[in-house]
Amino acid sequence: MSSRPESVTILEVGPRDGFQNVEPEIPTEDKVRIIDLLVDAGLKRIETSSFVHPKWIPQLKDAAEVFAKVRKMPGVSYSALIPNEKGLDRAIENGVKEVVYVVSASDSTSRSVFNKSTSESLAELSSIAEKAKGSGVSLRGIIACSFGCPFEGEVSVERVIEVAKEFQKMGVFEISLADSIGIANPRQGREVISKFLREVSNVPVSVHFHNTRGIGLANVYSAFEAGVTIFESSIAGLGGDPLTPGAPGNVATEGVVDMFHKMGVRTGVDLDKLVKCAEIVRETIRRASASKV
Amino acid sequence: MSSRPESVTILEVGPRDGFQNVEPEIPTEDKVRIIDLLVDAGLKRIETSSFVHPKWIPQLKDAAEVFAKVRKMPGVSYSALIPNEKGLDRAIENGVKEVVYVVSASDSTSRSVFNKSTSESLAELSSIAEKAKGSGVSLRGIIACSFGCPFEGEVSVERVIEVAKEFQKMGVFEISLADSIGIANPRQGREVISKFLREVSNVPVSVHFHNTRGIGLANVYSAFEAGVTIFESSIAGLGGDPLTPGAPGNVATEGVVDMFHKMGVRTGVDLDKLVKCAEIVRETIRRASASKV
Repeated sequence: MSSRPESVTILEVGPRDGFQNVEPEIPTEDKVRIIDLLVDAGLKRIETSSFVHPKWIPQLKDAAEVFAKVRKMPGVSYSALIPNEKGLDRAIENGVKEVVYVVSASDSTSRSVFNKSTSESLAELSSIAEKAKGSGVSLRGIIACSFGCPFEGEVSVERVIEVAKEFQKMGVFEISLADSIGIANPRQGREVISKFLREVSNVPVSVHFHNTRGIGLANVYSAFEAGVTIFESSIAGLGGDPLTPGAPGNVATEGVVDMFHKMGVRTGVDLDKLVKCAEIVRETIRRASASKV
Repeated sequence: MSSRPESVTILEVGPRDGFQNVEPEIPTEDKVRIIDLLVDAGLKRIETSSFVHPKWIPQLKDAAEVFAKVRKMPGVSYSALIPNEKGLDRAIENGVKEVVYVVSASDSTSRSVFNKSTSESLAELSSIAEKAKGSGVSLRGIIACSFGCPFEGEVSVERVIEVAKEFQKMGVFEISLADSIGIANPRQGREVISKFLREVSNVPVSVHFHNTRGIGLANVYSAFEAGVTIFESSIAGLGGDPLTPGAPGNVATEGVVDMFHKMGVRTGVDLDKLVKCAEIVRETIRRASASKV
């Protein structure tokens, strides 16, 4: 056990992956306040919003305003998810320095969710990568369905590795293995990640887990044991329906940080501040819901 | 990974450890119905109630009635916690075949919670063990604070092993390592359990974890990796305040079963029935709370 790393990096995805699931939407000033509090708690990487068409995700239609208003702290990366090249253009216009693009390792999920095949996604990513590079924007790649898919069931690690190697050719600076639908388990997760890390090197790898029936931290722990040191998580476990106890949101940032601290692994994050921030997030969502009623 | 066992045993503690924390108390007929549903879902071991003085835990004052009314299914063990020899007497009077006694590995916790030192507890257990044996009652031993204690902090594995060896001398048929206050983490848990299993053999070992900030299943997984195959859990995660989302109850039985099934490990339990049972438990508690108001 002593060979395990003594520090990990937490990548907060709540402002994007969480807020996009909250209805009615969170007011822009609350989003900005929460992001600033997350940074104040010590988080250095915040997936801040998405430049997706408001028709698809109206909750994030204020992406430009959010990016304009958050306090730009030195050493903190504020990234944006982009669904396509148009999204990249908007990110660049708004001075975003890190963008994130998702490719599904499962063709069926890719067609169903993104309306394009995996190889069509990769082709699109290729031109995105070129433009991003030309504009000095870092490109992060997420491989959705890395641990299985709702249509095909098992997704072979080999397929995930293929996508990752395409990412590397395009200059993706970091690869995220995402359990997009929350079906991973710690045993399989460890096997998938171990195989992946043997084949894909020279690029940082992060993981993204949901908390379906409380399994989230078990997956985080097993990924850590397999060698991962970058973990995506969401403040207050946002990502499912935040007002339904037990709904499978993302793993909660405060839970991930708490577990690592208990394990003696540093995160650079102040847990007390984080717990207070999670409370503010829940309160903000309650207020938004009440205002709708 | 393929050397790991392909089946585990789930020991349901909700009817004792869960119901004792529910206020106002659950009506006896609801307790009986829930226990019967748990057995119907495939659980073979149910910690059914406790013969503790009603002054201490009024919620379990109906222990005798519960034991009388549950459907006694062949092959199912219905056990009772006993705090002392008087408790054993009542268990025997009521035909209970398996009793459970708790000794804290931490002297400070022992004095604070049980009002006796660890060695006084062990002395008491010694006469309990003799009487139980004479009455044909199986005796299970729980070592509280196996992963740390609120007063002393770290509890040495050596101390836990000492208590276990005393248990073995007295004929305890199974030993439970309990994280009584929910402070274990998967890394330390694995280290403690691995050391323990190297020193203590020829006796089955179970673990008892809470779900403080969602860490429960990570601890279960790491204990499984360390070689444990018996897991205590509580339907609907009872054990903390069951109506406060996020309050650290025990690990939820449906979560433990779900995780093992996803890992391809058999539990003998029907997850669908278990999930329905958890819903009934929550509904029963809501009803009990409403009736108080």
